Amino acid sequence: MSYSDISTSLSPALEKVDRFAVASVLSANRGLLVDGSRIMDRLQAMAQIGRSEQGGINRIAYSSFDLEGRRYVIDLMHDAELETSIDAAGNIIGKRAGAEPGLPAILIGSHIDSVPEGGIYDGTVGVLSAIEVAQILAERKLSTRHPLEVIVFQNEEEGLFGSRAVSGDLSPSDLNLPSQSGKTIREGIEYLGGNPEKLATARRRVGEIAVYLEYHIEQGPVLESEGVDIGVVEGIVGVNRWEVTIEGFSNHAGTTPMNGRKDALIVAAKFIDAVNCIVRATPGLQVGTVGRIRVLPGAPNVIPGKVILSLDLRDLESDKIERLYQEIADEGNRIAATIGATITFKQTSVQGPALTEPRVRQLIFDAANELGLTSMMLRSGAGHDAQAIARIAPIGMIFIPSQDGISHTPREYSRRVDIINGANVYLHTLLKLDALFS
Amino acid sequence: MSYSDISTSLSPALEKVDRFAVASVLSANRGLLVDGSRIMDRLQAMAQIGRSEQGGINRIAYSSFDLEGRRYVIDLMHDAELETSIDAAGNIIGKRAGAEPGLPAILIGSHIDSVPEGGIYDGTVGVLSAIEVAQILAERKLSTRHPLEVIVFQNEEEGLFGSRAVSGDLSPSDLNLPSQSGKTIREGIEYLGGNPEKLATARRRVGEIAVYLEYHIEQGPVLESEGVDIGVVEGIVGVNRWEVTIEGFSNHAGTTPMNGRKDALIVAAKFIDAVNCIVRATPGLQVGTVGRIRVLPGAPNVIPGKVILSLDLRDLESDKIERLYQEIADEGNRIAATIGATITFKQTSVQGPALTEPRVRQLIFDAANELGLTSMMLRSGAGHDAQAIARIAPIGMIFIPSQDGISHTPREYSRRVDIINGANVYLHTLLKLDALFS
Repeated sequence: MSYSDISTSLSPALEKVDRFAVASVLSANRGLLVDGSRIMDRLQAMAQIGRSEQGGINRIAYSSFDLEGRRYVIDLMHDAELETSIDAAGNIIGKRAGAEPGLPAILIGSHIDSVPEGGIYDGTVGVLSAIEVAQILAERKLSTRHPLEVIVFQNEEEGLFGSRAVSGDLSPSDLNLPSQSGKTIREGIEYLGGNPEKLATARRRVGEIAVYLEYHIEQGPVLESEGVDIGVVEGIVGVNRWEVTIEGFSNHAGTTPMNGRKDALIVAAKFIDAVNCIVRATPGLQVGTVGRIRVLPGAPNVIPGKVILSLDLRDLESDKIERLYQEIADEGNRIAATIGATITFKQTSVQGPALTEPRVRQLIFDAANELGLTSMMLRSGAGHDAQAIARIAPIGMIFIPSQDGISHTPREYSRRVDIINGANVYLHTLLKLDALFS
Repeated sequence: MSYSDISTSLSPALEKVDRFAVASVLSANRGLLVDGSRIMDRLQAMAQIGRSEQGGINRIAYSSFDLEGRRYVIDLMHDAELETSIDAAGNIIGKRAGAEPGLPAILIGSHIDSVPEGGIYDGTVGVLSAIEVAQILAERKLSTRHPLEVIVFQNEEEGLFGSRAVSGDLSPSDLNLPSQSGKTIREGIEYLGGNPEKLATARRRVGEIAVYLEYHIEQGPVLESEGVDIGVVEGIVGVNRWEVTIEGFSNHAGTTPMNGRKDALIVAAKFIDAVNCIVRATPGLQVGTVGRIRVLPGAPNVIPGKVILSLDLRDLESDKIERLYQEIADEGNRIAATIGATITFKQTSVQGPALTEPRVRQLIFDAANELGLTSMMLRSGAGHDAQAIARIAPIGMIFIPSQDGISHTPREYSRRVDIINGANVYLHTLLKLDALFS
């Protein structure tokens, strides 16, 4: 696509922008590229932090590995001449001043915490590329109009806790929630060097952030199967989660006749199957998952008296999630009632769906085209920090292919060429945003 | 029932016995009773060892609470003038000499280890009553013909490890099995003061034990619902256990379409439901339970890639257990194949069914009748140490009612009067056995 094509394909919002300015940004930085080897070396260094014998990454939020990864990232920020700090919510921020006074900051970044036995790319590719973008600008002594902030949001995996604090969507009561580390969110934030008592100071208001641009692996199969280099994210699905508690009656597994049992795990089994059936039976791209289950007391010779499990529902439409939940809850109650057990649903998190800013999408397409890369629009089935920030600022997201579409496992993989392509698109989209956004 | 009724109702096996001897045992000890308050006080003392805030007993084998309970029991044995030792398998043995040289020992006892959040009666009632029987004999200076051994078998709950060592049914490789304490069986035995390297020395041969008599709470609903004081156990069901491993494929819960998943927990859910259906669909009193489940990696936002669960099948007929298992395994394979997952079954323990000795049953009936108590025959749905000892010696078991038939929970309860009744039947059955068995 030539510049004239780009020019005519600009979104209506962009048509207000001075086209001369666009042209000069394009030409001035045409030769600028990130140092791909540096990104890959740092990615390998990060891959040693929290790695288990099985090869998975266990940089669970608030674990010692999480802290170790954050220390490494702060060191990299210093290399990139960023001025680092930790906000009250425990997010790491690396700042670079802008040339034009009074402009709001452009935020770039992602997260480095992982699920248990996760992969090395999820979140980390975006964080290391954001630092690389800042470092290239520092090395080439290129200034931006806006201040630039590289941000590492804490605890993305368990519910976007860091980015929700920034968008004002984290309440003091959320601080009492447990996390997989064993710490509460409050204790976790303290562990990372944040100050939960001053949580409100981490909040940014509408207008304080010009735009948030996140770069991430797709974690799904679309780009690879379509053979496309760069994904331009249309929107991020909403993610609602519940803790589901089933109470039956615990008893001896040998002496209690089959017809005298209130086995909570039998109810849970039928419920898990029902979640799967209901989500599949509804037309659309929604997904539903039970990923965690705890059975009490949990011995082979005891009938389970209590089961606690997680329910995760995702779609681009909040209403559809609500309808699916109602159907699932009704079916859960029906199943529990058949043996006199009870089932209760406690909503543990709500992340509304978020659309990306059309002007930002267009600039990502432009940057990819300029670099000779193919691109396409797609939805994000995974939750991302950008989703939280969408409440207070325009957002954009860049995806690259994930091999076999897999993520959250040690087999997660993205090719070196794709990682570096994505970082270059990241750099050039940033420069365009800096030139065109106010 | 009068003595003449008893005399005519003696089993064929007993008819060989000298009826004059039976009559003299009956008359000589008619007034002898256990000290019921002492049993109950000690039961309350034991109820403090391993009690959680929720009120359950957590005297899990090889835990510090288990050790504490054993120390208390050893002290009680010393009060009862028993000579204590710990065999190589970690069982506690309290010995009292017999009057007649060359006779094999009569064993009485049970276990004090518990399931997680178990009750205070399971096992402990039998152990404390056995010590009480020995103490009453010591206090009244009554000698028995046979040597008497009060035995506390270690780790009953996870698979009769202590009693299986005594019966020669524990192999060196079993020592490497894990236990809920986090220790292997070997480490657990060492922790208790046993010597796993000399395991064979704990083994008893056929002929070394005249009879093993165990007293236990029913842990089921039969005696209470029939309004009967004493249960005479006909047999103990066989208990076979498997560790079932389901392997699917772990992936991101947001980006993986429903029809592209290999969710191991969906397979597990259908499997657990199938176990329940198959066991219920077969005529008879067999039971089947999935009591433990572990999901990996175990996060709300990750599709489960692997599930490990327990399968416990029980019946009085080994063949029936085998047929049920085959049906369950076939169905498990069919379910797993529908989504391309795999399922494997590893047998972790086999405890064959065991019938009690008809002569011993008869003497329990006799003792109950003498004490003015009602009695009935019933099967034991729970596994017991007597089951292991049945390989090498005649066994008998005495049951008392469990309120609501519940066990393995903090709500497990047996009435004081029933506990003391059972202990008196225990004492008098022992005296009859001593007189009549060679």
